[in-house]
Amino acid sequence: MVRVSDLEQSLDFYCNKLGLQVLSRTDNDAGRFTLVFLAAPGDEQAQVELTHNWDPEPLESGRSFGHLAYRVKDIYATCQRLMEGGVIINRPPRDGYMAFVRSPDNISIELLQEGDPKPPEEPWSSMNNRGVW
Amino acid sequence: MVRVSDLEQSLDFYCNKLGLQVLSRTDNDAGRFTLVFLAAPGDEQAQVELTHNWDPEPLESGRSFGHLAYRVKDIYATCQRLMEGGVIINRPPRDGYMAFVRSPDNISIELLQEGDPKPPEEPWSSMNNRGVW
Repeated sequence: MVRVSDLEQSLDFYCNKLGLQVLSRTDNDAGRFTLVFLAAPGDEQAQVELTHNWDPEPLESGRSFGHLAYRVKDIYATCQRLMEGGVIINRPPRDGYMAFVRSPDNISIELLQEGDPKPPEEPWSSMNNRGVW
Repeated sequence: MVRVSDLEQSLDFYCNKLGLQVLSRTDNDAGRFTLVFLAAPGDEQAQVELTHNWDPEPLESGRSFGHLAYRVKDIYATCQRLMEGGVIINRPPRDGYMAFVRSPDNISIELLQEGDPKPPEEPWSSMNNRGVW
């Protein structure tokens, strides 16, 4: 479970850009929170729960949690879709194998190519790192 | 991925007490780190990666990450095994359905009973909360 400050922005990131699907959503008026369970298509055993507390709270990151990680069928296509959606590719897939991005709340997300690394390809192979992950 | 300060202590917690299994382990002498991938038996799609950096670092928690969560076949048996292993049951399963504990590095872990909640049972039904989760 990760907490998110802006649910619509997070759903846009996790679903439209990263490619996850909504499995269920619960809006709790009394508790003033919304829970959304997400998973990659065909990977419903590995779920991510988003908790959105309706009353704002600071969502700082800590060092004990590292990242979420997903294997993807085409790491270049995934990064392209994220980049076109305005997501910074913090660690571009220069090696055709691994990339890192961050969610709107700075949750670090690792993307790994399924199977063998892909051959190096522009613009990725000459793209510099941006920020930290 | 979560970082752990003491790998043997963490493996004792996640495997012997919580019941996960080691899928793979990589010791990287050059990078001075060890990676261990864990999963619940039969649930290998949902993996947890432990990263142990050999050089000590502070592993503070942040609010953006909430918890890991596992469904268990018998929440009382799981909590009994954890408690006998010296783990504090921060949120006992008074309702026969939900409990929270913490890893040695304070990662919050939610345990949920599979299927219907179990009937209330001592010592759980009268056990108070301890600390936060």
